[in-house]
Amino acid sequence: MAPQTPLTGVEVAKHNSAKDCWVIVHGRAYDVTEFLPEHPGGMKIILKYAGKDATEAFDPIHPPDTLEKYLDKSKHLGPVDMTTVLAEATEEDPEERERLQRIHEMPLLEQCYNLMDFEAVARRVMKKGAWGYYSSAADDEITMRENHSAFQRIWFRPKILVDVEKVDFSTTMLGTKVDAPFYVTATALGKLGHVEGEVVLTRAAGKHNVVQMIPTLASCAFDDIVDAAGPGQVQWLQLYVNKDRGITRRIVEHAERRGCKGLFITVDAPQLGRREKDMRSKFTDPGSHVQSTGEGGEAAVDNSQGAARAISSFIDPALSWKDIPWFQSITKMPIVLKGVQRVEDVLKAVEAGVQGVVLSNHGGRQLEFSRSGIEILAETMPVLRQMGLEDKIEVYVDGGVRRATDIVKALCLGAKGVGIGRPFLYAMSTYGLRGVDRAMQLLKDEMEMNMRLIGATTVDELNPSLVDARGLFNHGSTPADYLAQAVYDPLVNPGQRTGMGLGGAQKEKAKL
Amino acid sequence: MAPQTPLTGVEVAKHNSAKDCWVIVHGRAYDVTEFLPEHPGGMKIILKYAGKDATEAFDPIHPPDTLEKYLDKSKHLGPVDMTTVLAEATEEDPEERERLQRIHEMPLLEQCYNLMDFEAVARRVMKKGAWGYYSSAADDEITMRENHSAFQRIWFRPKILVDVEKVDFSTTMLGTKVDAPFYVTATALGKLGHVEGEVVLTRAAGKHNVVQMIPTLASCAFDDIVDAAGPGQVQWLQLYVNKDRGITRRIVEHAERRGCKGLFITVDAPQLGRREKDMRSKFTDPGSHVQSTGEGGEAAVDNSQGAARAISSFIDPALSWKDIPWFQSITKMPIVLKGVQRVEDVLKAVEAGVQGVVLSNHGGRQLEFSRSGIEILAETMPVLRQMGLEDKIEVYVDGGVRRATDIVKALCLGAKGVGIGRPFLYAMSTYGLRGVDRAMQLLKDEMEMNMRLIGATTVDELNPSLVDARGLFNHGSTPADYLAQAVYDPLVNPGQRTGMGLGGAQKEKAKL
Amino acid sequence: MAPQTPLTGVEVAKHNSAKDCWVIVHGRAYDVTEFLPEHPGGMKIILKYAGKDATEAFDPIHPPDTLEKYLDKSKHLGPVDMTTVLAEATEEDPEERERLQRIHEMPLLEQCYNLMDFEAVARRVMKKGAWGYYSSAADDEITMRENHSAFQRIWFRPKILVDVEKVDFSTTMLGTKVDAPFYVTATALGKLGHVEGEVVLTRAAGKHNVVQMIPTLASCAFDDIVDAAGPGQVQWLQLYVNKDRGITRRIVEHAERRGCKGLFITVDAPQLGRREKDMRSKFTDPGSHVQSTGEGGEAAVDNSQGAARAISSFIDPALSWKDIPWFQSITKMPIVLKGVQRVEDVLKAVEAGVQGVVLSNHGGRQLEFSRSGIEILAETMPVLRQMGLEDKIEVYVDGGVRRATDIVKALCLGAKGVGIGRPFLYAMSTYGLRGVDRAMQLLKDEMEMNMRLIGATTVDELNPSLVDARGLFNHGSTPADYLAQAVYDPLVNPGQRTGMGLGGAQKEKAKL
Amino acid sequence: MAPQTPLTGVEVAKHNSAKDCWVIVHGRAYDVTEFLPEHPGGMKIILKYAGKDATEAFDPIHPPDTLEKYLDKSKHLGPVDMTTVLAEATEEDPEERERLQRIHEMPLLEQCYNLMDFEAVARRVMKKGAWGYYSSAADDEITMRENHSAFQRIWFRPKILVDVEKVDFSTTMLGTKVDAPFYVTATALGKLGHVEGEVVLTRAAGKHNVVQMIPTLASCAFDDIVDAAGPGQVQWLQLYVNKDRGITRRIVEHAERRGCKGLFITVDAPQLGRREKDMRSKFTDPGSHVQSTGEGGEAAVDNSQGAARAISSFIDPALSWKDIPWFQSITKMPIVLKGVQRVEDVLKAVEAGVQGVVLSNHGGRQLEFSRSGIEILAETMPVLRQMGLEDKIEVYVDGGVRRATDIVKALCLGAKGVGIGRPFLYAMSTYGLRGVDRAMQLLKDEMEMNMRLIGATTVDELNPSLVDARGLFNHGSTPADYLAQAVYDPLVNPGQRTGMGLGGAQKEKAKL
Repeated sequence: MAPQTPLTGVEVAKHNSAKDCWVIVHGRAYDVTEFLPEHPGGMKIILKYAGKDATEAFDPIHPPDTLEKYLDKSKHLGPVDMTTVLAEATEEDPEERERLQRIHEMPLLEQCYNLMDFEAVARRVMKKGAWGYYSSAADDEITMRENHSAFQRIWFRPKILVDVEKVDFSTTMLGTKVDAPFYVTATALGKLGHVEGEVVLTRAAGKHNVVQMIPTLASCAFDDIVDAAGPGQVQWLQLYVNKDRGITRRIVEHAERRGCKGLFITVDAPQLGRREKDMRSKFTDPGSHVQSTGEGGEAAVDNSQGAARAISSFIDPALSWKDIPWFQSITKMPIVLKGVQRVEDVLKAVEAGVQGVVLSNHGGRQLEFSRSGIEILAETMPVLRQMGLEDKIEVYVDGGVRRATDIVKALCLGAKGVGIGRPFLYAMSTYGLRGVDRAMQLLKDEMEMNMRLIGATTVDELNPSLVDARGLFNHGSTPADYLAQAVYDPLVNPGQRTGMGLGGAQKEKAKL
Repeated sequence: MAPQTPLTGVEVAKHNSAKDCWVIVHGRAYDVTEFLPEHPGGMKIILKYAGKDATEAFDPIHPPDTLEKYLDKSKHLGPVDMTTVLAEATEEDPEERERLQRIHEMPLLEQCYNLMDFEAVARRVMKKGAWGYYSSAADDEITMRENHSAFQRIWFRPKILVDVEKVDFSTTMLGTKVDAPFYVTATALGKLGHVEGEVVLTRAAGKHNVVQMIPTLASCAFDDIVDAAGPGQVQWLQLYVNKDRGITRRIVEHAERRGCKGLFITVDAPQLGRREKDMRSKFTDPGSHVQSTGEGGEAAVDNSQGAARAISSFIDPALSWKDIPWFQSITKMPIVLKGVQRVEDVLKAVEAGVQGVVLSNHGGRQLEFSRSGIEILAETMPVLRQMGLEDKIEVYVDGGVRRATDIVKALCLGAKGVGIGRPFLYAMSTYGLRGVDRAMQLLKDEMEMNMRLIGATTVDELNPSLVDARGLFNHGSTPADYLAQAVYDPLVNPGQRTGMGLGGAQKEKAKL
Repeated sequence: MAPQTPLTGVEVAKHNSAKDCWVIVHGRAYDVTEFLPEHPGGMKIILKYAGKDATEAFDPIHPPDTLEKYLDKSKHLGPVDMTTVLAEATEEDPEERERLQRIHEMPLLEQCYNLMDFEAVARRVMKKGAWGYYSSAADDEITMRENHSAFQRIWFRPKILVDVEKVDFSTTMLGTKVDAPFYVTATALGKLGHVEGEVVLTRAAGKHNVVQMIPTLASCAFDDIVDAAGPGQVQWLQLYVNKDRGITRRIVEHAERRGCKGLFITVDAPQLGRREKDMRSKFTDPGSHVQSTGEGGEAAVDNSQGAARAISSFIDPALSWKDIPWFQSITKMPIVLKGVQRVEDVLKAVEAGVQGVVLSNHGGRQLEFSRSGIEILAETMPVLRQMGLEDKIEVYVDGGVRRATDIVKALCLGAKGVGIGRPFLYAMSTYGLRGVDRAMQLLKDEMEMNMRLIGATTVDELNPSLVDARGLFNHGSTPADYLAQAVYDPLVNPGQRTGMGLGGAQKEKAKL
Repeated sequence: MAPQTPLTGVEVAKHNSAKDCWVIVHGRAYDVTEFLPEHPGGMKIILKYAGKDATEAFDPIHPPDTLEKYLDKSKHLGPVDMTTVLAEATEEDPEERERLQRIHEMPLLEQCYNLMDFEAVARRVMKKGAWGYYSSAADDEITMRENHSAFQRIWFRPKILVDVEKVDFSTTMLGTKVDAPFYVTATALGKLGHVEGEVVLTRAAGKHNVVQMIPTLASCAFDDIVDAAGPGQVQWLQLYVNKDRGITRRIVEHAERRGCKGLFITVDAPQLGRREKDMRSKFTDPGSHVQSTGEGGEAAVDNSQGAARAISSFIDPALSWKDIPWFQSITKMPIVLKGVQRVEDVLKAVEAGVQGVVLSNHGGRQLEFSRSGIEILAETMPVLRQMGLEDKIEVYVDGGVRRATDIVKALCLGAKGVGIGRPFLYAMSTYGLRGVDRAMQLLKDEMEMNMRLIGATTVDELNPSLVDARGLFNHGSTPADYLAQAVYDPLVNPGQRTGMGLGGAQKEKAKL
């Protein structure tokens, strides 16, 4: 291609409508007019940047090769002289100023003693939109919290007087020897939390010799994530299945070629969940009109569906059991179904000949009130054992894991390993690679201690007799329903009368 | 009737005692002296307006044709020249001013993401008396809250890998095809929340093709509600049975003639419940006398029984199973018993040959500690199935429904549909028709998503294996008892001594 | 006795030591020097008033005939010229001033809609010592609160379509026809709450035709309480059994002669419980010495055992089953054991031939963690029924009753009636007779409504099928342990660093 | 040894590095250069005091004979002229000033009515580091709190009409007659709380005739603790088994020679637990560097492992069942395994021929989510009884005991006695010997009362029929998880719009 005279900001700015829409990304201009209706995230979000520099909004959501891959070369308009592009007049944002101050004062990494501590720091220092996307879940977020609290209904029955001088909590997952029984599960949009995105997790996983599952919806390009792995480092591929099976096939074959050792097909997300905290944090008010009393306002920009839904419209809701043989035909990677939620489907998975299942409710982000992975595990394993199938399939669990005790409980109940998602994102979003490194090290320290204290020297010795999980199925108390609590107007006792009149609850005169 | 010279306010004002009582309603004067003792709401409330304009108090509680129907023509005194009527010197009411300010600042409709959000806004912007009437319930309001929290003791067991590209959650209720498995249940006094009253709900139900149940105690006239329906729109009649069966017969026959497709006889309200929040919000203090120490005040106007009790004195507490054949003899509409509360009575209903039951505790407004509809459902359906009766009767549920997950749970357990009351009232009371429209659309959006996520393409595929409802019968934890908490004086540790004396809990000297 | 020249205050004041101790009560002087060591409440409390007027402290704890009965006539020194007695220089007490203000502003009686409301008012307006005595219970007061919350683990299964036009909730207790299935149970020291004491309860019980149980530890003289009853009004006697059986015999025979129709022998109080709230509220600090650092103060006046223990030292801890025949030999009154706490002892009571039992833990004031009466009832009745003994003995329950729903639950489970104590004391202590009257009327109103709503026309129709009491035995959640909560120092996440130094939780430097 | 010229502070101060390290303890200098790498607490903590006076830090952690025993005589450099030693410039510490003020105002001992009260005072007046060490527990401290709340899931079934004039709650433990069924269990580092350390507990135990268990990690020298005992006073030895069995043997043989009557081998601590509250309270911030944004600080002194871990490195994690015969060969003291946590291991203990077990989770300080001792007891005793082994072994329980009701519950379920640790430490740390004395007396008073109220005259009469412990195994609700609660960002309803802009939750602009 011949060298180009750079475009100027003024020139690009002219193309600022749905009928003629240019945007700048990383210093290059693109004509997206024809692409607008096809944009998986909808036309509206692009139009917001019509004629402008869209880089900051583009980056966390799109792998760098996106434009290369999905926009015809003819629409690549070449470099822009960025000195001629008007910087958006950033209005003074007091919330952002406070956030920067909080970052300045954030605690030292050494003061984080457990995985919750990273989340506490993240809540203070992450951008609200990013925090909203990572931390939100379905409906009333009861399921997300149940995932964690379910573990707390399981108690230990430790053995004493076992020689635990040497304990070894390494294990094998899909044939890969790993140093600890957890893996980094797939989570979308890593660049929301850290400028480098998922490769930070790759490096930490490499250092600690645990597996990273690469997300379909990564902010980094797939190949960049693979390239960030060290020699011999094992990665898996998490797959959202595209309506266009050709695309899916290319993704799977490419991953296998690049050395991925497991294909985790997400089966709990035929449609991505609604996450109201995320939606609310992204609501934009037009601001300029007066609301008519009693009937609400006129109109408002509702871009509230949030990042996840924007990027997920390609997912195929028709995916079904009959597709499994096709996957088996296109790859030699072990296939694992991610998001299985009842024992009946685990049995179907065995029958379908897949190598594993992840018992999971997608971090509470999909169907509200689907049970926690650990509860499904406690339902599943006795059935598998009774049918002699416990060795026919590897069973993983994710959701709510924050302590090594959680991991030990899952292993006692029969899990091969546990996936951890948000905690590593929070560690990454606060202290970067050092944060994820420390988070993993804390888990390993806890693992070593807990193996000793429960009286087990290897993970093989972890068995159901070491836990009392009867309380797990007890759903008598549920995580707080904050919205319901907020709207309820509690009864009060009669208030005092003030002077001759009435005070407090009595002031109200009869109105009917 | 010959044209009349309008009366003047001064003339009306002379008739301001129990022995000679005129009131103005909608610009016309009425002599209600003889009617006073018959007023179902009691004489006292009318006397408050003796000689004055009573329109504002009259409207929300009485359908417009009330005076026409129940007051002899000879007592209709004709038009009043309203310019001569002294406007009540409205005392400056700071609470009302704050309320109007809150209305001015209420959130945009688009910011309401779920049914609870409407209730949150309603609590801020509704008149206290109206809020008190809609939101209150029996005794300590434990039952009302249990209705909602009962659903949260049911968890899902979703199926994966089902082709859910197309999902259809339409169903059939009493032979009517509806677009969603919920209906607008009957609630009294719609004009308390919105100036137009129940017809707002009619229009929204029409738009979304769901059934509206018309309440006996509507603020709008029955015919106005029927007239507001679009062509082919289906409505049901909710019936409080009058001690005078002639009146009841006329109501039922009229409803059938006007096209109602179901007769829902309320069976859980032989007497309307006491609702203390409502009573307390309507208490009027005489204010002018001094209370004698230790023995309470002299007297006070106790109009605390609230709107509901006032209007319900006609209800027949003698209604019993032996009346059912009579109803079957006067109408061809399907008959449904509304407020059935134990499986034994469902079986009796089958035997009595009625077409349906609504398992309900009347929104927690009647007998405190009667179980939630959803719990009664979980008790009922296994028995019906075991006896082969599950197709002999349609089983509905109401109470506490706020999310599509609640609806899905009810359908999984065997309900034909669920009734929703307060949430639509709150949506109507805040944003009017647009509010109810959005509330219904939110439910439909949630329904579609949840059908996909649970792996069901039609409501027929919703079955008991998709839920774990064992926790439903666990009454180990109960909604907070606010009054009991408020009166309890918690134990404290010893306080600090301040200087030479004592501080805090120690200050108290021995008194005995 | 010859008329006496009144004594002067100065003269009495000289006798102000343990070796020579006079006190004034109701304007008369008494020499209590020799009586000091025998005082059931201990010597210390009397010495506080040595040489002074003790009337105010004496009254609530001692029936008026106490001195007459227990102090030899020779020690009655005759009238004192009270104008010569120095009024105690009452120090300005801001707490008392605030209390009087609260009494001035207390709500109107009509604003009390339920029994809890009286307690709310009582907490504000009662003297702290009186409130401490009435409201306190054993140890952490968990049992007292459990008594109330136990009822909330029982849910109703109401019947519909029952003709409930007429409902009748009168019943029979020990052969007496009463208008409602509750009675006023015995509680000590009525004058702490109201200057007239227990006779207030007598009058209210008379008006409502319910039984009053007269306490051994009444502030009023027994005969005054009997005299306050109307013609035909039935009273029972509650009995603490004296170590001196002669005294006990005289009390019982006298009660029978005066017409008492039941003898309720307290069997759960061989020793009166420790009630720390009461003790703490009565602690007196010497105030004048400086506490040595780290080792606590030197000494302090510990009169913390409280009123109840002071007056109870006569109770016989040796009382046992073998005493029952003796009671049967000295009275023809029906005998009821008050405070039975397990089914085994109910069976023993049947065997012993007594007429009834009260299942009770003494309002939570005795053994902490003894079960609620309603739970013991649910344990007891199925056994009695199975053994065909349900008609051999009348079973009563007390503890925690605040609503008619509580009463209905007890009757459904098989109780003959329920005892109510504190609520009537609170009503009496706030609004006097009118208060107790209203409290009883509120219960009756609730009873009528609830009978209708549950579908029962008489108490005979209340049966176990109308309740679901399975949750009653679920002790998974316990009333809050406030002391334990207060001492626990919760974990915190790392705080922010402030400037160059550290803030919040980080400020603390290493000390070891 | 020849008299020495005292060293000067200046001279000592020169030896202030890892290569040449002198410290002053109790006015004498020591060369610890060679000892540094062997220090069980790590080198770092000593270096903090290199060239300085380390007495204050040394004392609570080391028995006085430590240097004598473990540092070669050649390194004892002799006396220092302390007037020449620069007092550490104590920076003005406002927290310490406030603490001293709180000590000045602490409540009188007589105001402590129960064991919780001592803890409340301790929390206010103890040094933060000492409080952190005593009060902290493993992970989220859920287990520690469960220990206490587990007792509250047990309810009593008291007997009535038992002659309880005389009650006797003395019992026998390992052949020793004691006045009450509790003992002082071993806890480390008594001098953190009181300058005299464990001997305070010895004296109180002697006065009340209960057994004291002497901790391996006492601050006082073992012999000093034994010497503090009165004639005939019984003590036991708690043993952490050293990797060097020679040392262990010497300790055991010495204890037996000195008259110890029981050997309690700790079996639940192959590695001491991580206690984050303790770690956080001891964190030292370097303070002087600026933290790089987003990536945390550079480095920080992490001495966060806390006192316990520092002193425990000698404990042998290889200790196992096969070591038991060796212990039996070196001592005639009864052997008890302390920290048994499942019935299977109790049976193994019987088989191994030891005399007792302590069912315990180490006060919640070791494995988080190990069950409470009382729950293990309820699991254990029915099995022992069924196998006829209940008399083959003495079963003790510790953890969470705060009330005599807790003790009675344990005895009812079959325990021989209960151990109490922290409460006595708190009593000692606040009021010294008088505090511990009162704490024990309060327990005895409660014991006497509760024996009466439950209807038992001796501990032999306490049996399982007196309790309902079914709720004990119900783990439906767990002590609050404070960290998880703190990080969760609750959903909110839409906020109000302020003016033309937006307020509250709406302020946030879309960021993506």
